[in-house]
Amino acid sequence: MTPLILSESDLCDRVPLDLTAIDVVEAGFRRLAEGGVVMPPVMSMHLPDVNGEVDVKTAFVPGIEGFAVKISPGFFDNPALGLPSTSGMMVVLDAQTGRVRAVLLDNGWLTDVRTAAAGGVAARWLSRPDAARVAILGAGLQARMQLQALRLVRSVNSAVIWARDLSRAQALADEVTGIDIRATPDAEEAVSQADIIVTTTPATQPILKAGWLRDGQHVTAMGSDQPGKNELDPECLARADLYVADRASQTRLMGELRAAIEAGTHSGNHVPELGDIIAGKHPGRTDRDQITICDLTGTGVQDTAIATHALAAFSKAT
Amino acid sequence: MTPLILSESDLCDRVPLDLTAIDVVEAGFRRLAEGGVVMPPVMSMHLPDVNGEVDVKTAFVPGIEGFAVKISPGFFDNPALGLPSTSGMMVVLDAQTGRVRAVLLDNGWLTDVRTAAAGGVAARWLSRPDAARVAILGAGLQARMQLQALRLVRSVNSAVIWARDLSRAQALADEVTGIDIRATPDAEEAVSQADIIVTTTPATQPILKAGWLRDGQHVTAMGSDQPGKNELDPECLARADLYVADRASQTRLMGELRAAIEAGTHSGNHVPELGDIIAGKHPGRTDRDQITICDLTGTGVQDTAIATHALAAFSKAT
Repeated sequence: MTPLILSESDLCDRVPLDLTAIDVVEAGFRRLAEGGVVMPPVMSMHLPDVNGEVDVKTAFVPGIEGFAVKISPGFFDNPALGLPSTSGMMVVLDAQTGRVRAVLLDNGWLTDVRTAAAGGVAARWLSRPDAARVAILGAGLQARMQLQALRLVRSVNSAVIWARDLSRAQALADEVTGIDIRATPDAEEAVSQADIIVTTTPATQPILKAGWLRDGQHVTAMGSDQPGKNELDPECLARADLYVADRASQTRLMGELRAAIEAGTHSGNHVPELGDIIAGKHPGRTDRDQITICDLTGTGVQDTAIATHALAAFSKAT
Repeated sequence: MTPLILSESDLCDRVPLDLTAIDVVEAGFRRLAEGGVVMPPVMSMHLPDVNGEVDVKTAFVPGIEGFAVKISPGFFDNPALGLPSTSGMMVVLDAQTGRVRAVLLDNGWLTDVRTAAAGGVAARWLSRPDAARVAILGAGLQARMQLQALRLVRSVNSAVIWARDLSRAQALADEVTGIDIRATPDAEEAVSQADIIVTTTPATQPILKAGWLRDGQHVTAMGSDQPGKNELDPECLARADLYVADRASQTRLMGELRAAIEAGTHSGNHVPELGDIIAGKHPGRTDRDQITICDLTGTGVQDTAIATHALAAFSKAT
């Protein structure tokens, strides 16, 4: 049996960030909470000589007929060569036999989709149902995609974009249509007026202060995925009524929780996971005025979910 | 740049187990000893529900223009479906940019080659130069390939094959030509008359007793690659004059060294690695009468070495 080889353009065309992608990733988180998932710690390779890093993630999810092994390189001198920093691919193995079923040469597209989809899942389960005003910190691809995901799950009517480089925030604001959107040089102003805040930066020093938070807000922090990164002032976790991890064992090591544990603003114990809320094992937000935080570091379950979704899209079509 | 996709038959044809493969793997071990190699611990996934396991290995080796990420599934119910238990593939990433350069759909062939090649390297550096008599414990593919590797580095004139199932040992003996070769039901007899002994089984209880060893012998144990496996009586490590690991941090966890540490026959400290001997950092065998043991658990460096060798074979040819 020859593995199916799919190119980046195949996958970009057929696997968009849509409500189905969000549902598929949500189902992955639910299964993670229901048990039986085998998800080893991320294999992480730091390559200081070439200013690069490689992460490998995987998860075996009972009930899904394949599982993905994802290779995610980030090589930060690439832009000088005219190449994107990140690339990568996924391999889908058959869950019964381990044979290679497909090679998805997506150059990171499926990761972009499943990462943004997780932001959609977090907002769907944790933000107020009537949340309409969004603040995005950061102006990269995930800033745009996280906003797109929010619009799939909430009736967003306005967005404010902040980035260290205002011109990039402005460029993103110019690009988006259909809502009231603007850029701002003032992160506090962006945050204080929003119902949902998404941080999407590779910051190593906090960009969101606890004092800026208002009752009823939901924050998704999705930029930290390495032990050195930190977007939220550790006080935010003390200020929040509910802190939720995508995977507690990961956020302790490489998410916002890591910095909060170090700063002493969170014990790191008894952390509910997003899947627990979806599966009904944790109530989630119980009051309109609560402040909720969801810390997303990226999980192999999302990769397996999106990769098998992609394969299904092709087997239906061909 | 579209990645090169190579099939199993491409790779079996063009990347045989030959002296070049042994030299390439030897160079990988030398580089490992010389420093700068980034080789994270094996990512290991146990899947009891489907009687399977998946290992992921990688190593970045300075001076080699690509590096491999290898996915090795073992699904032990496959034979009932008419499929081999093991399969897998390698992805070669560019060492400067992290971009996917090639996908090697080898179904484990390159692993077979680099594993046998490491046995050749071990014998070349640790066995007596005039070693001519071989004992192989086990009768699988690696039994055959390890013998083939030994014949590339030593003037082997006889071999004795032992396996739990004598008929399989006999089948292997029948297949090999050019040397005096026979099967035996008596492992002790096989071992006691050999200059080089290679253990190639998935045994979880020792199959080679310390009392069988004779002065001047070299033993390569290559079957253990998981914490539950064990081929050598732990006393063997106490009896040997020199114990060498492919990678000490791995053999402590999943090699023969693990069982010896548990049994108290080896401290686990100050373990020379095969690369140290190749690089001249450790003298290796210093006397004809010494007993040497090399414990091979399989390293990402071998994968990177064989994968880039395979790519070179194709870029020369096309």
